[in-house]
Amino acid sequence: MSQAETPGLICPRPLSDDTHIKLAHGGGGRLMQRLIEDVFVNAFDNETLRVGHDGAVLELPAERIVMTTDSYVVRPLFFPGGDIGALAVNGTVNDLAMCGAKPLYLTASFILEEGVETALLRRAVQSMRAAADTAGVTIVSGDTKVVERGHGDGLYINTTGIGSVEAGVEIGPRRIAAGDVILVNGDVGRHGMAVMGAREGLQFTTPIESDCAPLWDVVNDLIGFGIDVHCLRDATRGGLAAVMNELAQQSGLQFDARENDIPVAPNVRGACEVLGLDALNVACEGRLCAIVPAAQAQSALAILKARTSSAAIIGEVRDGEAGLVTLVTPIGGRRILDMPAGELLPRIC
Amino acid sequence: MSQAETPGLICPRPLSDDTHIKLAHGGGGRLMQRLIEDVFVNAFDNETLRVGHDGAVLELPAERIVMTTDSYVVRPLFFPGGDIGALAVNGTVNDLAMCGAKPLYLTASFILEEGVETALLRRAVQSMRAAADTAGVTIVSGDTKVVERGHGDGLYINTTGIGSVEAGVEIGPRRIAAGDVILVNGDVGRHGMAVMGAREGLQFTTPIESDCAPLWDVVNDLIGFGIDVHCLRDATRGGLAAVMNELAQQSGLQFDARENDIPVAPNVRGACEVLGLDALNVACEGRLCAIVPAAQAQSALAILKARTSSAAIIGEVRDGEAGLVTLVTPIGGRRILDMPAGELLPRIC
Repeated sequence: MSQAETPGLICPRPLSDDTHIKLAHGGGGRLMQRLIEDVFVNAFDNETLRVGHDGAVLELPAERIVMTTDSYVVRPLFFPGGDIGALAVNGTVNDLAMCGAKPLYLTASFILEEGVETALLRRAVQSMRAAADTAGVTIVSGDTKVVERGHGDGLYINTTGIGSVEAGVEIGPRRIAAGDVILVNGDVGRHGMAVMGAREGLQFTTPIESDCAPLWDVVNDLIGFGIDVHCLRDATRGGLAAVMNELAQQSGLQFDARENDIPVAPNVRGACEVLGLDALNVACEGRLCAIVPAAQAQSALAILKARTSSAAIIGEVRDGEAGLVTLVTPIGGRRILDMPAGELLPRIC
Repeated sequence: MSQAETPGLICPRPLSDDTHIKLAHGGGGRLMQRLIEDVFVNAFDNETLRVGHDGAVLELPAERIVMTTDSYVVRPLFFPGGDIGALAVNGTVNDLAMCGAKPLYLTASFILEEGVETALLRRAVQSMRAAADTAGVTIVSGDTKVVERGHGDGLYINTTGIGSVEAGVEIGPRRIAAGDVILVNGDVGRHGMAVMGAREGLQFTTPIESDCAPLWDVVNDLIGFGIDVHCLRDATRGGLAAVMNELAQQSGLQFDARENDIPVAPNVRGACEVLGLDALNVACEGRLCAIVPAAQAQSALAILKARTSSAAIIGEVRDGEAGLVTLVTPIGGRRILDMPAGELLPRIC
């Protein structure tokens, strides 16, 4: 029973060892051992983690691996369509997939704020486990730190992942070439609007759910069907606008996109209009931008559409001004799509 | 010129893009790009990082690797003998080394608090680079998040490392056997006391400096000279007492140590006595506990002493009560050395 359900209780109950996180849970002693066993090892249950050593010993199927890291500070911790746990798994899995790597192993590191409810932590951790199962990755090593009240925000999670790259797969900005076609695997901007809605208590006529999802299956489809994928990038912070600007800069080429062809769900479009936001700047967590040779664009589109019907071809790469991104507007004009300066919405992932 | 040097300045200066971290530095846009280029890529400068993709593609020399993660929340960020940057490198390098793995690659993920000085971040990052060079590891991928004031503490760092294990090397708690000998590679408790001194503004007669250091060279020496190392663990949070308790539990054996043989520097011993602390509970960041076969104990000691003269044989493992750690006291009695319950000193690493 929570304090809120206990009318007349004047003194706050002392925090028990089990219901709330205390500084001692990060102290390396008995309380920490119990927390790790109870919350983490139980949820992530696997042979490697049970060894209980300082690191995880892993056998790798390939000599070429990809390694990537992300810390997750999303606020609120739970939002429509996802939560920090699912995000922490999918975000890192997706960064591996964007390099053409099959995600294999994750580490998970937690910075807990003193006083956070253990039940909340447990819920996030269970969500991580479910997301890891869906994505086919194993959480093999972890760490827990506790900071004093007012020096965290309940829970921050870092995940670092490694994945294996098959021989012959080369995916990266260096391979982008003039003439390539730009695709997205579905409608953009849902994650950012779902988090903003949850944070600000906004009521949308049609509820907006985050697009948070693992992307390795999509990438594996493209590779498996023989698409010579030149580059992939997931449209997270800064949205599709940031991704296209980054890739245009890194390739030294010009990206030309058509606003009408970029899929945005009607409820996201409506919410963006009301709030004065550009959906192209809003983060996704299950959407990627794929750059493929023109000759394979229609095949790639069919593969993407088989998973998400809103997938689309949105533009082309050309040998114009290095780093420039242009957008044909709905009325037929052409404008520059800038790199967003900062972020409309901090702590989106 | 800092505000403190500007008498008469009434309004706080507005934060410029360059001198202090703003929320927009975590937003995925232009400001974040500039911060990453300016502070991180410049300091960690290497081929892999310059690719600027979502993950680092790495060639691995071995199929058997170790992966480990740690978040660092030490307070204060700078202390005698080290800082959060050096700690974040050495702590993770040491967890790899404790598994017998040669440290190869690190990722680095930063949670910055809005308003933190960029100069402070730069100093920590430069320290990471120096520590990485000393330890022989490359920082290959990274991430930056910014949280609002009051939701962080300047800077938290996560590092995740991978290292390679040579064929035939098996180091872990499962290999601990009755009759094994317990060694430490030097005097214990300096890191914890150095941080506590810095945090509380204590003046020690002889200054106490952290023992923060990478441990792979020590481990490599042991392996290279043919010591059949059964288990290694670095004595961080919870100190040597926690390590011996963990290993006694995990091996199902009894650990018997002699208090007189455990090296503690005189200034650390004195500070512990004044503050009522047990040096065996105080964290180190460059000290390990090694469990080796009795027949090789003297050789192992000689190898450890070649690097740190205070290295010592401190006890034996026996087939007594599973999980029990006993200590022969200086006056010849025997007491149980318990697992510390929590931590005397939070945020030590």
